[in-house]
Amino acid sequence: MLVTPQSLVFAQAEPFVLESGATLQPVTLAYETYGRLNADRSNAILILHALSGSAHAAGQHAPDDTRPGWWDDCIGPGKAFDTDRFFVICSNVLGSCYGSSGPASIDPATGAPYGLRFPVVTVGDMVRAQTHLLDHLGIDRLLCAAGGSMGGMQVLEWAAHFPHRLRAAIPLATTARHSPMLIAFSEVGRQAIYADPNWNNGEYYGNGRKPDAGLAVARMVGHITYLSDASMQQKFGRRLQAREQYGYEFQTEFAVESYLKYNGNNFTRRFDANSYLYVTKAMDYFDLSQPTGSLAAAFAGATAVKFLVVSFTSDWLYPSYHSKELVRALYAVGADVTYLDIESTWGHDAFLLEVDTMTRLLSSFLDRLAQEEGIARP
Amino acid sequence: MLVTPQSLVFAQAEPFVLESGATLQPVTLAYETYGRLNADRSNAILILHALSGSAHAAGQHAPDDTRPGWWDDCIGPGKAFDTDRFFVICSNVLGSCYGSSGPASIDPATGAPYGLRFPVVTVGDMVRAQTHLLDHLGIDRLLCAAGGSMGGMQVLEWAAHFPHRLRAAIPLATTARHSPMLIAFSEVGRQAIYADPNWNNGEYYGNGRKPDAGLAVARMVGHITYLSDASMQQKFGRRLQAREQYGYEFQTEFAVESYLKYNGNNFTRRFDANSYLYVTKAMDYFDLSQPTGSLAAAFAGATAVKFLVVSFTSDWLYPSYHSKELVRALYAVGADVTYLDIESTWGHDAFLLEVDTMTRLLSSFLDRLAQEEGIARP
Repeated sequence: MLVTPQSLVFAQAEPFVLESGATLQPVTLAYETYGRLNADRSNAILILHALSGSAHAAGQHAPDDTRPGWWDDCIGPGKAFDTDRFFVICSNVLGSCYGSSGPASIDPATGAPYGLRFPVVTVGDMVRAQTHLLDHLGIDRLLCAAGGSMGGMQVLEWAAHFPHRLRAAIPLATTARHSPMLIAFSEVGRQAIYADPNWNNGEYYGNGRKPDAGLAVARMVGHITYLSDASMQQKFGRRLQAREQYGYEFQTEFAVESYLKYNGNNFTRRFDANSYLYVTKAMDYFDLSQPTGSLAAAFAGATAVKFLVVSFTSDWLYPSYHSKELVRALYAVGADVTYLDIESTWGHDAFLLEVDTMTRLLSSFLDRLAQEEGIARP
Repeated sequence: MLVTPQSLVFAQAEPFVLESGATLQPVTLAYETYGRLNADRSNAILILHALSGSAHAAGQHAPDDTRPGWWDDCIGPGKAFDTDRFFVICSNVLGSCYGSSGPASIDPATGAPYGLRFPVVTVGDMVRAQTHLLDHLGIDRLLCAAGGSMGGMQVLEWAAHFPHRLRAAIPLATTARHSPMLIAFSEVGRQAIYADPNWNNGEYYGNGRKPDAGLAVARMVGHITYLSDASMQQKFGRRLQAREQYGYEFQTEFAVESYLKYNGNNFTRRFDANSYLYVTKAMDYFDLSQPTGSLAAAFAGATAVKFLVVSFTSDWLYPSYHSKELVRALYAVGADVTYLDIESTWGHDAFLLEVDTMTRLLSSFLDRLAQEEGIARP
């Protein structure tokens, strides 16, 4: 499946006002689409990505691309998000570094990259930006929005604030309210970046000295939290990477160390440290129970939305109790909720790794939904 | 209780040979003692500390000391480790920065601090150094050895390799085999230190530029792992520290961020970054199931040792299954084992924080032990 990156520029005439009160003008959103819109424009599914994701959710940009999009396992012809039936859209988030407006973008006021002058954005801002994309694509109402982790937060934000624009919501391995432990892990990642002298208060674009060391440490912490104790036992155990016995020195020697180092370094080649700050901050601010203190109140308008809520037993970063709290709030307002707590050893990453289970689950939910809503093929 | 720091210097004539084959000559061990040895020298209890601990386990160094030793809640007259009855010793570990030989010590060969020329030490090396301290104090056999976390690893090392030198062992919130997740967290801490240009490959002593930023990040990661999701919810929630609403900028604003930052910075004033590398590496190497692959084999000689094994339900760093695995191995060799999995929300820190429970538990275990072994008061 060959796909072409696209982007939408909006807020050219009128500034886009953020939750903070700050403004952006213009705003760019990178996105991709897979499959075709049907005649009554009712078969659109919006896929939302996590912290380090991009709009490239499926397919290849060129025939010789060795790495397909990040959720290619589930998006494509005959797959869970079946592109023979659905028009699948994936939008990059505001603040990211994959083609959307973010700290590395050029500030039209100065002609230089924003750096920390880029305004802090929220998950709410990300989603309001996506409503412009739907308007642009001529889609009044999504068949559904789906995503895991921060993608799930966007799904919940959609359901809470734009319930009339979607028929169903699939939040996976996520929360309606970022916990202090999640904030703590975010902050450690940010502190690792701040601690890197190359970060230079966010002013490093074009000077040839990026805060790679700090960003790599932030990513290593992240990778530990995406796995589980059990999956690390399975995947690495206490195996040494390239030696038979302890070296009694400070080289990388355990397989798990090597995995972290590889992924940490790799991340610095594809992600921007300032974007890491902005996107983690947006997650930390996410709390749908505010301002009333009641999560149910947030979903009062979402009674017509059908929810498929999924958590994973070994996900200690977004433990199942977050999803259960969400499900209770949805029941309280009388929403149509299907909830599954899936047995898995893969930790938070399970939503991407449990492909067979997720495929069965998503396919059957979408089948039912398409039938109930009378969605025609394109 | 006023106490005086003491230290033992040994291996002056003959080098101390480490597990790696490297040698140290001489070796200094810092220690403290509380209470008095009885007539037949049978009432000695050895307390072993965790990663960032010191020999200062109880009492005050001066009458105006505002902070007593790290386990003062449990060591003293009438406390769990009752200094009216027992002679309590706490030994600092090899590789630490609290008065024992470590990377910040002067290398007699060069007259300058060792830095990374200090040999990598193991938990086994730490314990063999402690046997010299017992010899020095004229104690053939301990009544017991007790400690949590890395202190518990030393307890297990004592029981496995010097079972004839202790009557009882109290390993708390620990493991007989460091897991890949534990190694991963250690490695992230070390990578944060390596990433600090001030670390300078371990050569920073006396140049006025310590790798404080890196060490602080390492400590922040540590602090998250010592708590639990539940205890962070209780302790911090999503409370902001010194403001009413989001600031939409990158200052520390959540209470949990403030806690991490305070503790991270504080740590740099009391701990040495190189010691952090050495001590975490020693923990990572810890695996009593080697070389045979059987944990039971490690304790084959410890059938006469009485064990009190304790884990805590919310300790996700050293989850209960580690203790259960240990208990199974001890049962397999017919050792006398009492095991408790204590319900607590305080995570790994519970072994220090659940003072009432620990006091009842330790007191009753030690009472029984002293009675069974006919231990006279001093």
